[in-house]
Amino acid sequence: MSDKLDRLQTLLARVDHLSSASAVLTWDQETYMPAGGAEPRAQHLATLSQLSHEFFTDEEIGTLLDQLQAELSDADPDTYEASLVRVTKREYDKATKIPSELIAELSRTSSHAKEAWKEARATDDFEKFQPHLEKLVDLNKRMADALGYADRMYDALLDNFEPEMRTADVERIFGDLREKLVPIVERISEREAPDDGVVRRHFPTERQWAFGLSVVEDYGFDTDCGRQDYSTHPFTISFAPSDVRLTTRLQEDYLPSGLFGTLHECGHGLYEQGIPPEWADTPLGSNASLGLHESQSRLWENLVGRSYAFWRHYYPQLQETFPDQLSDVDLDHFYRAINRAEPSFIRVEADEVTYNLHIMLRFELENAMLDDEIAIKDLPDAWNAKMEDYLGITPPNHAEGVLQDIHWSMGALGYFPTYALGNLMSCQLYRAANDAIPDLEAQIADGQFGDLLGWMRTNVHQHGKKYAPQDLLKRATGQTLGADDFVGYIRDKYSGIYGALD
Amino acid sequence: MSDKLDRLQTLLARVDHLSSASAVLTWDQETYMPAGGAEPRAQHLATLSQLSHEFFTDEEIGTLLDQLQAELSDADPDTYEASLVRVTKREYDKATKIPSELIAELSRTSSHAKEAWKEARATDDFEKFQPHLEKLVDLNKRMADALGYADRMYDALLDNFEPEMRTADVERIFGDLREKLVPIVERISEREAPDDGVVRRHFPTERQWAFGLSVVEDYGFDTDCGRQDYSTHPFTISFAPSDVRLTTRLQEDYLPSGLFGTLHECGHGLYEQGIPPEWADTPLGSNASLGLHESQSRLWENLVGRSYAFWRHYYPQLQETFPDQLSDVDLDHFYRAINRAEPSFIRVEADEVTYNLHIMLRFELENAMLDDEIAIKDLPDAWNAKMEDYLGITPPNHAEGVLQDIHWSMGALGYFPTYALGNLMSCQLYRAANDAIPDLEAQIADGQFGDLLGWMRTNVHQHGKKYAPQDLLKRATGQTLGADDFVGYIRDKYSGIYGALD
Repeated sequence: MSDKLDRLQTLLARVDHLSSASAVLTWDQETYMPAGGAEPRAQHLATLSQLSHEFFTDEEIGTLLDQLQAELSDADPDTYEASLVRVTKREYDKATKIPSELIAELSRTSSHAKEAWKEARATDDFEKFQPHLEKLVDLNKRMADALGYADRMYDALLDNFEPEMRTADVERIFGDLREKLVPIVERISEREAPDDGVVRRHFPTERQWAFGLSVVEDYGFDTDCGRQDYSTHPFTISFAPSDVRLTTRLQEDYLPSGLFGTLHECGHGLYEQGIPPEWADTPLGSNASLGLHESQSRLWENLVGRSYAFWRHYYPQLQETFPDQLSDVDLDHFYRAINRAEPSFIRVEADEVTYNLHIMLRFELENAMLDDEIAIKDLPDAWNAKMEDYLGITPPNHAEGVLQDIHWSMGALGYFPTYALGNLMSCQLYRAANDAIPDLEAQIADGQFGDLLGWMRTNVHQHGKKYAPQDLLKRATGQTLGADDFVGYIRDKYSGIYGALD
Repeated sequence: MSDKLDRLQTLLARVDHLSSASAVLTWDQETYMPAGGAEPRAQHLATLSQLSHEFFTDEEIGTLLDQLQAELSDADPDTYEASLVRVTKREYDKATKIPSELIAELSRTSSHAKEAWKEARATDDFEKFQPHLEKLVDLNKRMADALGYADRMYDALLDNFEPEMRTADVERIFGDLREKLVPIVERISEREAPDDGVVRRHFPTERQWAFGLSVVEDYGFDTDCGRQDYSTHPFTISFAPSDVRLTTRLQEDYLPSGLFGTLHECGHGLYEQGIPPEWADTPLGSNASLGLHESQSRLWENLVGRSYAFWRHYYPQLQETFPDQLSDVDLDHFYRAINRAEPSFIRVEADEVTYNLHIMLRFELENAMLDDEIAIKDLPDAWNAKMEDYLGITPPNHAEGVLQDIHWSMGALGYFPTYALGNLMSCQLYRAANDAIPDLEAQIADGQFGDLLGWMRTNVHQHGKKYAPQDLLKRATGQTLGADDFVGYIRDKYSGIYGALD
């Protein structure tokens, strides 16, 4: 067996090295690349991803997996060998089901669709994007058919981002969440929102950078094994667990945007740094799902970073960093300002109370598109109707409505729900960590994050992609995913800010 | 034919894209990569270069080249098709001659040798490096045997860096140069050297950066198609003609190091930006040789950047940039300070008068090692004897002597001469450009470089790797390489600084 395992690992390492190279090229593209680099870079990346797909779907890998699976049929499924074969086999079967022409067509179509989307958004003209989206939805249907699904077409797509999660489960969880959350949002909308003018003063970006990075290091991000750079659209990308790149964007006139964006990306980075380096060259050395990934970013951004305990420790430091801006603002005022919640149009700027409602409407519309329950041309009206229904507001134009996100232009249907699933997971994981670390809040108020990070390392990070996300969540928290921890967190926290919400 | 040509170009593009990806990974490695990235990065780069070699030496490429060569036997050799096939065939034949085990062994051996060299240099202990160098010389002999050579073993290695140049030609040119240069160096050594204390004052690096970059842009480097970053060891690397990366290093207490280093790398960058973008995915879309590359860097660094005309334009700007440091220093004083010449131990810090002597001794020692005329254990003594002979000085230790350069630890024998060849070419090309542009000096004194760059574009850059270096040089200057233009340049310029040198 060890010969076959060695050979499998050699073949998988080649695939991983090509993917890691792609990651470096992508990082440079978004951070330092001059304009002239765009066209050749797109070609270089296309070659790398094509080779990586060709090498991964090589029949030799399939044969080795089948042989090893047979030899390991009696093995403990938790061993490295059994886990590697199981996880790789799952990915191999999916990858070999998708015809390479379909991948190429999706790639070409989304290249054009992205340009059309930018143009449509700039001119507030949905019709410019409509034919591209129609084609992309058709290609997504073809992909779902190729991948196969037991129940709903959406299942096949969702599985690409959140393995083994079913559409019906998401509907059940979102239904429960909606029922409990919408009344809270309604109550909050009726109350007076905290003043946030104090965080809209002028905050020089160099000092924002230094403060943010100091928290990132306090959180436990190892800057010998990663770094932070600027980018227009913040993201985190890993070349290896020992080389994880964070990016951030800072606004001079709105402190929370860059600060919490930095902490958000740090959460992603901590996950990537916690994946066992000895798995790095295999499919095991990856995150469990996008939802789990988002749980980590949201935990360090919101559950920790927007908590009162956190600011008891950091607010004096922040005031020292920005004396002209904040010396006349007390901790309570600041805490309320950074936790101002209200219905808004733009998902990426939404507060933690209303954010999930933005996701739900996208999830419902994606299902309706796939199931032919809605024509693409009617999408803007449907969008606006759901915004009114969920958030009580109607976008003034399509740029702030149906055209605001890049995801559909990239052909990525099934991606959006992972944001909300991640929010729910973050609360469930935090609750479990809090149960295990009795003085967690006191530790946070003392700027100590080692126990919390250690718990995440043990219960989430170190497992890489070994377990399906819901298995991992159940091992870590005792339960599969639900909305209760999230709703409880929101109700408790925002009662303190807006008054009783029951 | 066009089907075969298309197929050849497709296969070559795949090779080029992998090489370009390697270049991005290498650039990041030397500029931004955190320490933890080193180990995985080495693995990712090894996979990319192995794949690139495998793809390039694919038999299908060999068959296509043979078929196309036959079909093109009557074609004008200057056409794109004929040039592509000729140049690619030359590289293919070389690449397929070297067994892949030899490449792998060289790579492994040089990895260890680099570490041993660092250690040996740090402890001034040549014996730590000696066994590694012995092995690397043996591997270079095996490579020369695999590649084949008509006359001298060194020919095969030199050809890797300076195609079609023969060892006997280099010996003849260096012999001539030595005869004319050593007396000049002796005379300069006897005279009083200009005071360079004024360029050893404190020059804040941010302002050095801004000044250097402004000259780089004046030279014509397009910052929409490239950029500059910091690195410990300055280098230039191209991902495509529209994405060329310069790096630099600045010293607070010695202005010339960073300033002329910046202009040197800019010269390399201008060459890369001038290569036809439509050739980028083929072997034609490359530099003609390392010597030609160095001719461009040295031209913009020395012939232009250290000229009196240049500083007539830029010195007032430099004084404005550094008023505290330079307001009491007049142009003549500054000009003499940046052109101080004297025998010194370290090649990379040598002035333009003595630099080539550092190269000649390396070239002679490399030949002696390959031809078994010297035992590796005797190398330090031989080094010191030649230093005394050429420059009249003896290194106080091996770190400043035989252990100063990284090249041998990388297994790169045959590389060094291209530095001196590039110096000679730079003077020959400048002389020809000066003949073609009657008011060139006046243009430089006016900060105008468009005509000079245009001449280099037309006569050097736009030909990529189409012509063998000496053909290119003859087309551009009317002559193949000789030492006369260099010696004339040095004698004229330094007579003005040190008094008559005849």
